[in-house]
Amino acid sequence: MARTRHVIAVDVGGTETKAALVTGTSQEVQAVKQQRCSTARGDADAVVDQVASLVDELRAASEHPIDAIGLVVPGIVDEIEGIGVYSANLGWQDYPFVRTTEERTGYRTAFGHDVRAGGLAEHRMGNARGLENAVIIPIGTGIAGALLIDGRVRSAPGEIGHVDVGHGDPCGCGQTGCVEARASSAAIARRFTERTGKPVRGAADVAALVRAGDADAGAVWHEAVDALARGILLVAALLGPEAVVLGGGLALAGDLLTEPLRDRLDGLITFQRKPDLRLAALGDEAGCLGAALLAIDMLEER
Amino acid sequence: MARTRHVIAVDVGGTETKAALVTGTSQEVQAVKQQRCSTARGDADAVVDQVASLVDELRAASEHPIDAIGLVVPGIVDEIEGIGVYSANLGWQDYPFVRTTEERTGYRTAFGHDVRAGGLAEHRMGNARGLENAVIIPIGTGIAGALLIDGRVRSAPGEIGHVDVGHGDPCGCGQTGCVEARASSAAIARRFTERTGKPVRGAADVAALVRAGDADAGAVWHEAVDALARGILLVAALLGPEAVVLGGGLALAGDLLTEPLRDRLDGLITFQRKPDLRLAALGDEAGCLGAALLAIDMLEER
Repeated sequence: MARTRHVIAVDVGGTETKAALVTGTSQEVQAVKQQRCSTARGDADAVVDQVASLVDELRAASEHPIDAIGLVVPGIVDEIEGIGVYSANLGWQDYPFVRTTEERTGYRTAFGHDVRAGGLAEHRMGNARGLENAVIIPIGTGIAGALLIDGRVRSAPGEIGHVDVGHGDPCGCGQTGCVEARASSAAIARRFTERTGKPVRGAADVAALVRAGDADAGAVWHEAVDALARGILLVAALLGPEAVVLGGGLALAGDLLTEPLRDRLDGLITFQRKPDLRLAALGDEAGCLGAALLAIDMLEER
Repeated sequence: MARTRHVIAVDVGGTETKAALVTGTSQEVQAVKQQRCSTARGDADAVVDQVASLVDELRAASEHPIDAIGLVVPGIVDEIEGIGVYSANLGWQDYPFVRTTEERTGYRTAFGHDVRAGGLAEHRMGNARGLENAVIIPIGTGIAGALLIDGRVRSAPGEIGHVDVGHGDPCGCGQTGCVEARASSAAIARRFTERTGKPVRGAADVAALVRAGDADAGAVWHEAVDALARGILLVAALLGPEAVVLGGGLALAGDLLTEPLRDRLDGLITFQRKPDLRLAALGDEAGCLGAALLAIDMLEER
């Protein structure tokens, strides 16, 4: 029988860092206590300082000894060497996260990529459970994908936000036509305001306007859905996933997102295997739960 | 030490079928005797009849008992169930190749997909050797890709010929903008003739004209390279391969293909890992050698 472990999981985000005391097995974990704070600015050392103090607080709140730490970060990640290779947002390059976190905390540390860890959690205990091939796509400020291929979330970059789907708009990455430039939550909010001059707090406001029948919001939403459908079509041709699991803030729009997306994909698809479109189950906890699973996997040498 | 096996490999192609008596281990095989013939027309039963008679001939020529058969076919393939799910070209649907081949020949039969088997051969003993992540792309009448991900050629469709790269030309698959519609050998020959009215025997003739400075051939070649570079860029964003290995008839153009392709990719790439561009090592024998490796893997339960 799988052994119950007690770990501390930390998901370092571009703006917010989430930490949790997590209990469970390699198949199912649960957050017992959670902490959130703005991600420390400065450099990777500042981030590790913050991780160490979150670990101190959560350890003090635990009724059990802590077995390990699971830490996930954005950007380019070398999971095997334990190195944060590059993060444009957070400003690090080739930083040894595992070594420094272990030195600062005294706990063995498992290390991974935030999006892939979230995909791992959706696979083990969320809406990608039981699948062999799927893509888990969190949509927030940016768009990325965790690629589940032949039963495992792979180390591939999965940058579905930065494939060119032909709309021609420039993207922050230096290319044009990127999915993210039209379909991320940030892009939807920005494009609505550019079009109408009306400020919105985010994509959720635009979604509410779409539901209320606002034509401008509808047009921006339609273009977002089209870009996302074309990105998914590329993934379908290359990887043939059984399902596409949509997460992140934009997935809170629910049917408003999945129904037109399914229609658009139906219109575009020819020979490709048609993936089932689903909403993610774990919300913005997925990264943290995935970090905990990485820690448990490390303890069990999976 | 790896045991030497003697197998018969058959690569059923859209026009030509290649068969070989192959000797070797799971790491390296060699064709001892080869046969080629036009693929039997009619249905899958006719193809299996042909496979059985090729097996008979090659068995008679062997100095050793035959251990197994390796059979690879195009289209959509269910490797685990041993079924040819669909081939538009050859006209079968849900055909049990393993069962019928085993009944007809009396030999255990390993079954796979032609392009993925070719990728397997390039990985074990060709120009993808030692890599963990690569894409092997044979370019002939069509364009497909074998995806090497985390050390194994995966079962993913890898249809890099049918991703939309924005040129807008219609493709036989029902979409527009497909890589294959501009960059396959067939497309290059067809587009040159459409442009000039001059017949050519194939893409090799167009390549010779490019070398001789023909402007029309140069334009068609340039558009082929652009489409292929954009397809590779998508794969780089999603999968981050260390290398792209180009095979099939078009790869015989050598530097005439790889040099402008490298330049074009340099011009397009921003954040993606830049893959090394290489030519395949095994030529049009790759599928047959891969089929033999599948047979040996089956015998060794790899």
